[in-house]
Formats: sequence, C-alpha cells, structure tokens
Amino acid sequence: MVPGGMKDIIIDMLDSGWVDVLVTTGANLTHDLVEALGYNHLQGSSNVDDKELHKKKIDRIYESYMPNEVYEGMEDFFGKHFDKLSTTKSVNEFLWKLGALVDKKSILQSCSKNKIPVFCPALIDSGIGLMVWGNLAKGKSINLSEFEDLKEMLDIAWTCKKAGVVYIGGGVPKNHIQQAMQFSKGAMYGVQITMDRPEPGGSSGAELREGISWGKLNEDGEYIDVICDATIALPLIHAALKDRIK
Amino acid sequence: MVPGGMKDIIIDMLDSGWVDVLVTTGANLTHDLVEALGYNHLQGSSNVDDKELHKKKIDRIYESYMPNEVYEGMEDFFGKHFDKLSTTKSVNEFLWKLGALVDKKSILQSCSKNKIPVFCPALIDSGIGLMVWGNLAKGKSINLSEFEDLKEMLDIAWTCKKAGVVYIGGGVPKNHIQQAMQFSKGAMYGVQITMDRPEPGGSSGAELREGISWGKLNEDGEYIDVICDATIALPLIHAALKDRIK
Amino acid sequence: MVPGGMKDIIIDMLDSGWVDVLVTTGANLTHDLVEALGYNHLQGSSNVDDKELHKKKIDRIYESYMPNEVYEGMEDFFGKHFDKLSTTKSVNEFLWKLGALVDKKSILQSCSKNKIPVFCPALIDSGIGLMVWGNLAKGKSINLSEFEDLKEMLDIAWTCKKAGVVYIGGGVPKNHIQQAMQFSKGAMYGVQITMDRPEPGGSSGAELREGISWGKLNEDGEYIDVICDATIALPLIHAALKDRIK
Amino acid sequence: MVPGGMKDIIIDMLDSGWVDVLVTTGANLTHDLVEALGYNHLQGSSNVDDKELHKKKIDRIYESYMPNEVYEGMEDFFGKHFDKLSTTKSVNEFLWKLGALVDKKSILQSCSKNKIPVFCPALIDSGIGLMVWGNLAKGKSINLSEFEDLKEMLDIAWTCKKAGVVYIGGGVPKNHIQQAMQFSKGAMYGVQITMDRPEPGGSSGAELREGISWGKLNEDGEYIDVICDATIALPLIHAALKDRIK
Repeated sequence: MVPGGMKDIIIDMLDSGWVDVLVTTGANLTHDLVEALGYNHLQGSSNVDDKELHKKKIDRIYESYMPNEVYEGMEDFFGKHFDKLSTTKSVNEFLWKLGALVDKKSILQSCSKNKIPVFCPALIDSGIGLMVWGNLAKGKSINLSEFEDLKEMLDIAWTCKKAGVVYIGGGVPKNHIQQAMQFSKGAMYGVQITMDRPEPGGSSGAELREGISWGKLNEDGEYIDVICDATIALPLIHAALKDRIK
Repeated sequence: MVPGGMKDIIIDMLDSGWVDVLVTTGANLTHDLVEALGYNHLQGSSNVDDKELHKKKIDRIYESYMPNEVYEGMEDFFGKHFDKLSTTKSVNEFLWKLGALVDKKSILQSCSKNKIPVFCPALIDSGIGLMVWGNLAKGKSINLSEFEDLKEMLDIAWTCKKAGVVYIGGGVPKNHIQQAMQFSKGAMYGVQITMDRPEPGGSSGAELREGISWGKLNEDGEYIDVICDATIALPLIHAALKDRIK
Repeated sequence: MVPGGMKDIIIDMLDSGWVDVLVTTGANLTHDLVEALGYNHLQGSSNVDDKELHKKKIDRIYESYMPNEVYEGMEDFFGKHFDKLSTTKSVNEFLWKLGALVDKKSILQSCSKNKIPVFCPALIDSGIGLMVWGNLAKGKSINLSEFEDLKEMLDIAWTCKKAGVVYIGGGVPKNHIQQAMQFSKGAMYGVQITMDRPEPGGSSGAELREGISWGKLNEDGEYIDVICDATIALPLIHAALKDRIK
Repeated sequence: MVPGGMKDIIIDMLDSGWVDVLVTTGANLTHDLVEALGYNHLQGSSNVDDKELHKKKIDRIYESYMPNEVYEGMEDFFGKHFDKLSTTKSVNEFLWKLGALVDKKSILQSCSKNKIPVFCPALIDSGIGLMVWGNLAKGKSINLSEFEDLKEMLDIAWTCKKAGVVYIGGGVPKNHIQQAMQFSKGAMYGVQITMDRPEPGGSSGAELREGISWGKLNEDGEYIDVICDATIALPLIHAALKDRIK
C-alpha cells in the first residue's frame, strides 16, 4: 500500500516528467484505485486485536486500516465499466483505460494522462485482478496477455540510450526492472530504498552492486543502497530533487 | 533462488504428499530448471568484486554464483520443446508440461508427476518467461491466461474443507495465497518463515495475525511467525515432521 | 535475558569445559540470579496491553514475563549476604562469591565452581548493580574496581596461545572481547550469532571480518557470521558439538 | 562511533541546553576524543579487503576508516595529563576533566563546559578505558567508582519533575537510562531511533511501550519508535526542533 503522503509524492513525480516507466504491484494500484473511488485508508496501530478489527470489517495493513466495503465499491465500478476495459491486449493498456475512468488524482490517472507505461507483472495478485476474474466468472471475456507487456518493456530497455532505476521496496517490481536491464547497456544510475537484508538471499534485499555481475547495472554506473523506510527516504529525495531542479 | 539442500527438502515435501498447492516465483522455477538441465549453482562469497564476476560471466545471487551460459542451455531447450509447451491454457498446465520434459529430480518434475497445482503469478518476471517471449519474438504463439490459474486457485480455496498455509519468504507468492484464503474459511494453520520486518508495511514482513482482520487467517487458527533464515528454519521443520510422521 | 533452554545450554557449555572466559551483561546475570533464587520467567506474548501488565506488576521482556516481586527477593538476599560479598577487589571475584552463595544450577554457580573468569563491564547497569547501590546507600561499603577486571582480561588475551571467540548477541560484551583480542595475536576462530545489521554502523551488527582490519581477528582466522536468532542457532551448534566431541 | 555530521548535531543539542543528562558508550567518547586531538575519521567502503586495511594500519568501522596511529596520540595525551585526571571519584567527573583539557569542539568539551552530567557505564570497554589501564600498569593510581555515578544518576531520576528520554541506538546506554527511569515517575516522553528488531528479545530492539509494564515509561507518556538509521532520523528531528524553537 502507498501511504497518503507517499502517493502524492509519486503522483508529483509522474506529473513532473521524472518517470519514464512505472513497474508496480497490483496491490499498490488497487489501493490507489480505492482512494480514487472515494474511500480512505485510516491511520491505526499494529498493537491491536485483529479479531476486533475483523468484527468491525476493517482490514489491517500494518498501521493502516481499510474498510472492507471498498470491495463492493470496486465491484460496482468494474461491473459498470468492464466492457470498456476488456477491449485491450496488454495490462498496460488496461491500466491506462482504468486511469482514464477515474476523476480523482491518482497514480493510475497520472500514468494514463501522461501516457507513462505502467507495468504490473502480477495483476491477478490484487483486488483489480479479482475484479477481472469476477467478471469473467459472469461469462464476460478479456484477452490480456502479459507477454505483450513484457515485449514492450524489453523494447524500452533495448532502445533507451541511458537507463536509470529507482526501487522503492523490492519484490516482483524490482526484479522485473532488473530483468529488463539485462537487455539495456546496464543501468547507469541506481537508487534502492529498502529495509530488507541481503543475507537471506532474496532479490528484494540484494545490494545493487550484485547487479553488476549480471550486467543489470553498468560497471561504470553510480548507485546507492538506502537502507531506510521508504516513507522517510522518498520524501527527502523528492524534496531535494524539487529544490535542485527549480 | 532455492539453494541446494533446500531444493531437496522441497522436492521431498512435494513427493511425500505434504503439499496440496505450490505457489512460487518464476525465479525459483528457473533456477530449478537450470539445474534440471544439468547446470550447477556454486557457493561463493558476497564480499567480492562484481566487476570481476561480470568479466567471468558469473551471475551472483548473494553468496551463490551461476554461470551466465545457462541462458544458452535454456534457449536450446525451449527452442526444441516450444511447440509441445505452447498448447496450454494456464500457467499451471504449462509448468506441468515443462516438468514432464525434464529427466532430473526437480521441483518442476515433482509437481508434474504428482499433479500438484503449481501457480506462478508473475511468470513473465523470470528466465522461463523470457524464453517464452523469445519464441514469441520468432513468430511462434502461445495462449496462456493467468486468469485460468486464478480461477483454479480460488476454486481450490473455496472448496477446501480446511486450509493451512506455509510461507517460505514473502513477495507475490505469499500475497497470492493470502488473497486466495479470503475465499476459504480462513487458514486454520499458518507458518511463516521470513527475515523481513513488519514496520515498513509490506506484505512480506507482515505478521500472520494481521490476516485475521481480513479473514485470511481464521480467528481460531493456529499460527507462528518464524523470524529466521529459511535455510536454517525449513530443514529443522522438515526433519521434525519426518520424525513425527514416521 | 537468557531464556530457559538457552540457560541450560550455556550452563552445560560452562560445565563441559568449553568456556575459558565469559563476558556478559549485568542483565543476563540478574535474570540468572533471579531464577537461582527460586523465581520463574513466564512465556507470554508481545501483542499485549502493557498497562495491564503494569497493573499486575509483571515486567515484560519481549515475550517473557517476570513478576516484579523478584526485586524484593533480591533485596533480602543481598541484605543477608552483602558483608560477605563486599570483601572483593574485582567484579569477577564478586560474581564468583555470588555464585558460591546460590544453591540452584545457574550461570553464576557454574562460573564460580569451575573458576571460569566472568567479566561484566557494566555491572551497575543491572539489578545486581542496583542491589550493591542499595546497600551502599544504607552506609555499607564495597571497593570494586573494574580496572582490576580489565587487567585480568587483557592478561588472559596477551598470554593465550590461540584465541577463539563466540558472540551470542552483541553490545558491550562483544565489544569488550573484541577490545581484548587486540592484545592477543588476533582470534583464530570466530562465531557470531546476531540479528543486528551491519549498515547502521554499530559494533553489535558489525561483520566479524571487520575485525581483521583492527587485528582483533587474525588474518588467517576462520570465522562465520550467523544471522539468526540465538535461541535457534545456539541449540543447533551446541547439539552438533556435543555429538562430535563424544 | 558518531559520524561527523552527527557529532556536530549532538554538540549543538548539548550547547543549546536541550540535554539534561548524557549516557553514552566509551567508544563514542573515544572517537570524539580522537577527533578533538586532531585526528580524522575517513569515509570508506565496507566492500573492501580487510587484510589490505590491516596492512595499511587502518581500522574499519563499517564504512568509516580510522588510522590506528590515534592510539599513540591518545597515549601521549593521557601520559601528559593523567595526574590531573586521576583525582576524581566518579566517571562523570573524570570525563568533565577530560573535556576541559581539549581545545576542539567535541562532545566531551560541551558536556564539560555546560556541566551536563555524562555517564558512561562501561568506560573500561573503550580506548579511554585502555589509556587509564595503561597508566595504572605503569604504577599510577586512580580511584574511580561507577557506583558514584549510579548514585548521582538515580538521584537525578528520583528528583526530576518530569522525565523524557531520547535513545539514539540501544546497548548499555539505553538500558541504563531505562533502569534509572524505574526510579522516576516513568518517562512522560520517549523517542527511540534504532534499526534493531524486537523479536530477538534484547533491550536495544525492544519497543518503548514494553517499558510501561516496568514503570520505565509512564502509562500516560507519549512515545515513538523510529525504525531508522540514526544518521537519517536525527538530523531531521534536530532541524525540525531548531525550526520550532526559534
């Protein structure tokens, strides 16, 4: 989930022309859509009785609370718009259409209106994915191929003159960008903001310099591992960049 | 990547009938396939000059080294077998076919021969995904829909009498199982092995009890968060279970 | 605090002649003494209302609970024995006398009866330290000099033929041993069990190899950083050693 | 070790009258003294060959490098001034005398000139402690009792109207302040900046709210656990406070 202030920062980065490609999780886009449809996430506490929350139909994401009723709102929305959304070939196109349908400032809307390619390699693993499945279960159809997105993403990596990567957290989005970098000349700039450790061996916690061995990061690239909560580090980086660019 | 001893344990768990459904990353399956094709991962060190490794065409995954030539081996393999593999509808079916094609003990082979559903919600984010893309780029076709897999996975969750979940690490696989649990009565058992922290707010580090608020974990479920490297915790759990089941 | 099973392991290591010198915190020795005086620590939960615990006079140490009444028990004990305890010059001697006074199996008793030097460089930072202070406040006197302990510890390091170090956690005990190693030929063996990270820059999370630069670890030394909860790693190491030594 | 910018912030906090009591490690004071004597710490890298550093007589502290020659400089300094320093009863007094002897801006100097009590419960575990030991080995004497410091610290806690605590990292300093808080009405404010986890059970990673059960933190106290590298969090907090106080 992208907490409030973070979402505004990401939207500002998208609207400022700083972002050429966005790769993200279905969860991030779902929580973004939920707010675009008028719902709110609430700041709560993690030291809480989750059974009580369950009774009150509140879903917890660490310290953030979300009313479970958002799913009904999404069902209405997708029920109304599914026919328009389903005439797509790639996930990117699908997400652009989705972003064009919402009125409120949101990540989806900004990607859509700025035509920023937005890749989501595991869309089925999200509320949005569930909404598509729900409509398929009602007999509707959609013809989404993630290989269309993969093709487009590798083309961008292959043809770009100079690549730079910024990772806010890890997971599939990080790995997916790293994978694409193998088809570029290797990223010349890299920033990674994470609280994950390298020692367990997963992609999320891996130091950026590891990518040099693969050719994901250029040997002459500049890079920094920021071991920090993204809600602390990103606002600082964003503000500093705003200041320098002015 | 699944280190050597870990892979044997997972294969044993699959072959022992302990696993009803496997959800994993494309990377895990790719490294599994690479070894099934006869390549090895080597134990190295993380305190190394990655530029040197790059010159020697060795890809580093923390302390594991993999020769980059595995990609050529995979290209040959997929070139030879793509036509057989491409006549599938779901990723699960595709992976079963893949597993039936390899001779060596492997996760893919065990899922295939034991007909254990194996879901991989971000297949495009992996070497295997790249191999499919490479064949599509040569004009071949495949008609994989991850929504077929999602349908099958939610059906399993919906119809199972009693669910239990075991998470080795987090990422999309954890979140994907958690998502399916919302369609079950909530998991009655949960084990999570992770080194990720809850505080940054991501799914990977989230405590299992958080799932109670969502209905992913049953209110009466038993569960444990094991804050430990999986290469330490899983062999212990496996050995203890082997012993008790005997 | 040293959880139950862990304490037994450490006592067994002391009684088996495996330990030449023990450096530990005052807290570890206080909780050890508390149990030697007949009190128990209870296994609880960290997801609890600490105000409720406060009302019930239960002190929480993550998942362990200790009744606050142990302090009265310690006051009685030190009131009765202070005169005997106060005729010492070093903390080590003081702790040996303390260990000779308790009947139950304990770390203090094992160090005392086996004459294993036990150093505690911040004794005042503990319940035991408070007990000494309480008796001084009543007009009694003691003449403890930690520089006596430092002298003894550096002598051991200086004269030992071959040093090896085992760190269970970090803090002052780790740093204090590292400091002494500068006066040895550098440790030839090193094991460190910790969950702390290197990146924040503190001594507790520092990789052992860092000690090579200082001469704390010998250039030809063998060493391993075990990134693991000590309650998982130590029993494994202990059991494996028991098995091999037999 | 207190990195450059951090040291300036801490000195500013001391000189601004924000700090009533400082509790710190001997290492922090040693590295502070080293710079006050004219030496520098250098910014290096942790991905380095520690054997090479050892040959060059450079001591590594994660990414900071310190020339080993600082020890000679300290020996000269303590050799010259030991007689003046040794006429003390408490560590606090000793450190104030030390701070009065240095010319350069430093933590020691600021504590000394502002008469801010500075407690260091494990002085022997530091370069400064080694310097005292070295002079004792030459036949000189000192009569430092840490119980004098303990008495003074508990008096401050006992008599203060309202206590607040700020922890930058953990270790003995945190635990020592927590211990003293048991003699106050419980801290009414608490800030903790740490990267340590609660789950291993140590004091450094313990959540502040745990202190409520002990009476270390007041039931009505306000507090926050900042899971962040101190070199990121402290400058932000310092700058925000500067701004608000103006």
